[in-house]
Amino acid sequence: MKQFPDNIMGVRLSSNINSDLLDAISVTKADKVFFLFDENTFQYCQPLLNIRSEFPDSFSLILKSGEENKNLDQLRRVWDYFEEKGAGRNSLLVNVGGGMLTDLGGFAACTFKRGMSFINVPTTLLAMVDASVGGKTGINYGGLKNEIGIIRQANDVLIYVPFLESLDQDNFNSGFAEMLKAGLIHDADLWTRLIEYDLDIRDISLLLPLIWRSVQIKHVIVAIDPEEKADRRALNFGHTFAHAFESLSLKLHEHLHHGYAVAYGMVFESALSVIRLGLSPEESDQIKEVVGSIYGTIPFAGNEIEQLINFMRSDKKNDNNRINITMLERIGKYKVNNYVEENMIKKVMEEILKP
Amino acid sequence: MKQFPDNIMGVRLSSNINSDLLDAISVTKADKVFFLFDENTFQYCQPLLNIRSEFPDSFSLILKSGEENKNLDQLRRVWDYFEEKGAGRNSLLVNVGGGMLTDLGGFAACTFKRGMSFINVPTTLLAMVDASVGGKTGINYGGLKNEIGIIRQANDVLIYVPFLESLDQDNFNSGFAEMLKAGLIHDADLWTRLIEYDLDIRDISLLLPLIWRSVQIKHVIVAIDPEEKADRRALNFGHTFAHAFESLSLKLHEHLHHGYAVAYGMVFESALSVIRLGLSPEESDQIKEVVGSIYGTIPFAGNEIEQLINFMRSDKKNDNNRINITMLERIGKYKVNNYVEENMIKKVMEEILKP
Repeated sequence: MKQFPDNIMGVRLSSNINSDLLDAISVTKADKVFFLFDENTFQYCQPLLNIRSEFPDSFSLILKSGEENKNLDQLRRVWDYFEEKGAGRNSLLVNVGGGMLTDLGGFAACTFKRGMSFINVPTTLLAMVDASVGGKTGINYGGLKNEIGIIRQANDVLIYVPFLESLDQDNFNSGFAEMLKAGLIHDADLWTRLIEYDLDIRDISLLLPLIWRSVQIKHVIVAIDPEEKADRRALNFGHTFAHAFESLSLKLHEHLHHGYAVAYGMVFESALSVIRLGLSPEESDQIKEVVGSIYGTIPFAGNEIEQLINFMRSDKKNDNNRINITMLERIGKYKVNNYVEENMIKKVMEEILKP
Repeated sequence: MKQFPDNIMGVRLSSNINSDLLDAISVTKADKVFFLFDENTFQYCQPLLNIRSEFPDSFSLILKSGEENKNLDQLRRVWDYFEEKGAGRNSLLVNVGGGMLTDLGGFAACTFKRGMSFINVPTTLLAMVDASVGGKTGINYGGLKNEIGIIRQANDVLIYVPFLESLDQDNFNSGFAEMLKAGLIHDADLWTRLIEYDLDIRDISLLLPLIWRSVQIKHVIVAIDPEEKADRRALNFGHTFAHAFESLSLKLHEHLHHGYAVAYGMVFESALSVIRLGLSPEESDQIKEVVGSIYGTIPFAGNEIEQLINFMRSDKKNDNNRINITMLERIGKYKVNNYVEENMIKKVMEEILKP
């Protein structure tokens, strides 16, 4: 595995969150500083920040937790709070939370008065390795994930791993899935190290270089193609199916962690890779086995296939009604823009979801 | 006056709106084309477009007219329509309307699925010379103008002057004020030609080069300083007062066209320029006289001065409670960031608004 640098384009590994945050905030020369939490991060992460002593004049707003609250109502709460407290174009928002919070907060900041600064302090593994890099911001709307948003890089991203101590196992595993994905698409060695990592012990110091390598992979791919015209779609491996799983779960009011959906999605998209790109069946089987051992049985049944395919049809990347899926040539090597007919997808789903 | 080119950065003068639009649309390679109108532009401008024959598969949505409808409800109507008709990231929105419509439509497009393409077809003089260049998009929110929005350039802007035939005189004069401003800040020759232009006859062919020169001036200034750190504030000449006039009118439920407010504002800011920058009293008097002849008596009275100054205090550009005003050194030469004490403003207002 290659060496990892201390800092890549606006993302830094923090060993002292308070002094690093002080530094990051002072760089922005903000006239007012706002902190955004959700109920969980206010309870578990805010105590690690010395807000009262370091930023006595700052403002804090606490949103409801949960992906279902990444919506227009909560976005309006942030906008209204900015207005109430006299935020201006030179003010700064610090988002302390998971992907829901950094996505929503980022969007609120870059649309208020046509653009305030914002800093992300991701507190979940998923947000550290995924949401923290690449500048995607937004909210769910009209029953669809991330339907409204824009791409704008945060002024700074601080990754501080002690926040992970308070993370529950499901959320930990969820973030781990995006790390597995990073290995699968671009670094076979990272994949090998990840499947050797002991998720029961959860040694954070051993995980640190693997987190950084995952961030690096995302960074490199985003730098090649920030607007997602082609290569950035590599990051979507597993996600075409994942988004359908998440949309169906949302509709059924059943909670499904993003990373779990991605993990299940990678099983299907690996199976398609075997058919379309000649991924070896052994590698596809290994992926299926690793996913099964961490994420358990795929919680969807054959009679839901039609609904799932329906959701895939509205995917942002499609073209001429064929579904666009990122695939693997082998573990560690992605290929984007594989357009697949619906009946091939259906066949693979029937195969995997058979009783 | 300098020669004017056919095309500057994404803005073109159209002599045949249907073929130019066809060309502009084909460049985007859009999979679906949406047209956005308001009630007025659907009635008066849409008949000039051969939408049914040229774009038989396109979709059209008609919004309510008026600045008071540049709000979140109408923004949601556009987002919902996109969702209903299956718009995707490769779809395109064509905004046919005044500044309200191009601002709102631009914001809807660039936030839907994190960014569709959009083309502006401004139909008012104000939108052609002002809103069409510079990429400001957004809506009013919480009682404040343009509170939510972002800066993103349109893929293309088509200026087609025959739309002006159906424009009423007040709206025509309103746009004309921004042209006068362009002359005052950056081109004395343009100013001279504008004050010679006969607004009763309204010969559009004579106006065309003056429109283009105004667009060019805005373009040049925006290119120097897209984020409005300094020079872009030149475009704010007349606007510090104008925003106060507009806010007071809004509060009193009296309608005031933006350009009228700007014209009145230029009278006051010229008078301040005499005191602070040595603008010649003759030039200041000429500005006052031209504004009076086109826009009539300034509809504010001495007993409203306190309220107006109150509104100026909340301007985004102020510093240490002094009010930031763009001024003229002479006609054709601006100077930004002139900070003025409130009692000087009060004195000038009392002088001009005396009975």
